[in-house]
Amino acid sequence: MAVGEFVVPDLKPVAGFELGVVEAGIKKVDRRDLVVMCWPESASVAATFTQNRFCAAPVQLAKRNLGAKPVAAVINTGYANAGTGPKGLEDAEAVCARLAELLHVRAEQILPFSTGVIGEPLPVARINAGLPQAVTALEVAGWYNAAHGIMTTDTRPKAASVQFEHEGQTFTLTGISKGAGMIQPNMATMLGFMATDLAVEQALLQQLLLRAVNGSFNRISVDGDTSTNDSCLLVATGSAGNTPLSTLESALGQKFLSALESLSLTLAQAIVRDGEGATKFVTIEVGQAANAEEALKVAFAIAHSPLVKTALFASDPNWGRILAVVGRAGIDDLAVERVNIWLDDVQIVADGGAAPGYSEAQGSAVMAQEEILIRIALGRGEVQETVWTTDLSHDYVTINAEYRT
Amino acid sequence: MAVGEFVVPDLKPVAGFELGVVEAGIKKVDRRDLVVMCWPESASVAATFTQNRFCAAPVQLAKRNLGAKPVAAVINTGYANAGTGPKGLEDAEAVCARLAELLHVRAEQILPFSTGVIGEPLPVARINAGLPQAVTALEVAGWYNAAHGIMTTDTRPKAASVQFEHEGQTFTLTGISKGAGMIQPNMATMLGFMATDLAVEQALLQQLLLRAVNGSFNRISVDGDTSTNDSCLLVATGSAGNTPLSTLESALGQKFLSALESLSLTLAQAIVRDGEGATKFVTIEVGQAANAEEALKVAFAIAHSPLVKTALFASDPNWGRILAVVGRAGIDDLAVERVNIWLDDVQIVADGGAAPGYSEAQGSAVMAQEEILIRIALGRGEVQETVWTTDLSHDYVTINAEYRT
Repeated sequence: MAVGEFVVPDLKPVAGFELGVVEAGIKKVDRRDLVVMCWPESASVAATFTQNRFCAAPVQLAKRNLGAKPVAAVINTGYANAGTGPKGLEDAEAVCARLAELLHVRAEQILPFSTGVIGEPLPVARINAGLPQAVTALEVAGWYNAAHGIMTTDTRPKAASVQFEHEGQTFTLTGISKGAGMIQPNMATMLGFMATDLAVEQALLQQLLLRAVNGSFNRISVDGDTSTNDSCLLVATGSAGNTPLSTLESALGQKFLSALESLSLTLAQAIVRDGEGATKFVTIEVGQAANAEEALKVAFAIAHSPLVKTALFASDPNWGRILAVVGRAGIDDLAVERVNIWLDDVQIVADGGAAPGYSEAQGSAVMAQEEILIRIALGRGEVQETVWTTDLSHDYVTINAEYRT
Repeated sequence: MAVGEFVVPDLKPVAGFELGVVEAGIKKVDRRDLVVMCWPESASVAATFTQNRFCAAPVQLAKRNLGAKPVAAVINTGYANAGTGPKGLEDAEAVCARLAELLHVRAEQILPFSTGVIGEPLPVARINAGLPQAVTALEVAGWYNAAHGIMTTDTRPKAASVQFEHEGQTFTLTGISKGAGMIQPNMATMLGFMATDLAVEQALLQQLLLRAVNGSFNRISVDGDTSTNDSCLLVATGSAGNTPLSTLESALGQKFLSALESLSLTLAQAIVRDGEGATKFVTIEVGQAANAEEALKVAFAIAHSPLVKTALFASDPNWGRILAVVGRAGIDDLAVERVNIWLDDVQIVADGGAAPGYSEAQGSAVMAQEEILIRIALGRGEVQETVWTTDLSHDYVTINAEYRT
């Protein structure tokens, strides 16, 4: 199940960035399951990775290789290569070595990514057997196929392009993502891959990626778990030929940041809309907070509450559940009589109690929608943060209880 | 649904502590829904309350009245009287005033407790109309009826007695509890009421209650939410005539603590076994931790993970999900290669990876059980903590999605 429609828009190629996709039969047949991406050595490369202490072998290796002038990425589905010990690292290295051989580069220049079941060994032979065909398939128009090639429990591909103009020149930013939970340690992983033709200095690129990820992929939650394999890659090929961007203090820098944030948010929200068992797309906006930390605490407490999520599934305007979560979210000196809560434009809680004039019919009308905004004003300050989540449905239980059977 | 059988054992009366139960028709007919408890003014009274900032009107009032030599408690089901503003406090006061009148005591000597729906006004008239009959019904043998009288979504009453001997005299500790989630902000609440005939000084009684609650009611979780009404009351009537216990440094003190911890644990575990939609009773034991805080962090992260809980429901030995939660539980310097995990006696993770010789059949055999022990050794120290939880089933979603409809 998934919320609403997500039509993959026209994907713009990024000069210098090629993608090759094959059906390697890694776990299932007749399925695009192996993707290779390739870019010039002169490109800048930035990446963010899972904070999980059990980070998968490919994450460990990609982190290490990030400093070695990477020129390609290899992504397999079916197996996460996590919880696989020293053998897992050897396996990831073997895949990188084979791709490096085919591309005539050093093995350290390859970034590996895996997504799938935890704890089972990576089928290196099947992956390596598929690599030559993936390399042959490399093309700048490969984005749409690649969006399919990284899917696991996803019900639909997630991809988008953003273009912006600067001094008569058009720059492009294109990306794909996968994930049907913020995390699924089982079919582990959220993955994001983005590329631009803009030239950007590496240090700035990393800084901008962190900022964009923080406002998008780090603001979504399906089930509150964190995968062993989460990764997001951003490559700036520099094919546009501009003087490398080195600071945000410029019109071009601002335009690029804005494009990057927009693309990241689209890809992140697409993951929520395709959340496991999702029937609702829920925006949680916490305002009037004293600082970002407490705003996010409240927002994520609501996003993770099984009681709120089941009420959302039932389209039940059970505001007591929302209020109770706000109260336990960890703000010790919260003045409850200053708290106000709205469902879209319908005020349900005023000054800490039932809003005068509120009727259940008003709340039910909002909750019946497919997209719902829960807006909370804490009455403590001026900071606002937003997170996006889904409801908790029977299908979520079915998908996660029956996945391996 | 509920896990296993829970036969209410023979409940021992506590001299000096009387309970009266009536069908007051507060929300539904033909249901014991109003309980009065009464004890001598000379008794010591201790209580713990929810940490939720939105604490219900009765919780605010009970906290205030605790210092005014309380002699009685009144508990209604159906309505939580939470999120009801100043009117809610007035309503709780009106109930206390009526009971005080009937008992010929001051209104400040009554402790009110409510459990039920949040945000709807307390039906004071119906409650007060039931009070005279509840007072008439007061008897030391009222425990079993009272265990029924505080039930909401509970599928069965929860009650137990512990007796211990000291210097030829028998002392009694009896208690009841309710709750089918650690919290349900909707049918809000976990409540516990315990009484002993032992004389105990108030300061020590409060200290012992905190210690017992910390090892029992604060170690259980069904859905990770925290209610606006959670309360636990302990009354020491002193009817046994002993010199009031003033220190733990005595044989009697140790015996009492042990009895209190045992009773609290029985009542707390009964709540988990009756968890909403529960099909499994799960013990999570986290050992080799550097301190209690990190052990509890890991244990509760597992207890709250929807992915682990759905795997438990499916009897799926999906150890990758457990391992991934350990990795994201917030121990920054966790050395994953020192982590070991068992399902009962079957080792599933050794030194951070799949345990050699482990077979899925072994894991499946344990997971098929109704009671499961998940044991984790962090390899960091010698502290161990235990929490108890349930699985996440279709019935949980049904109960919480359809409760109000």
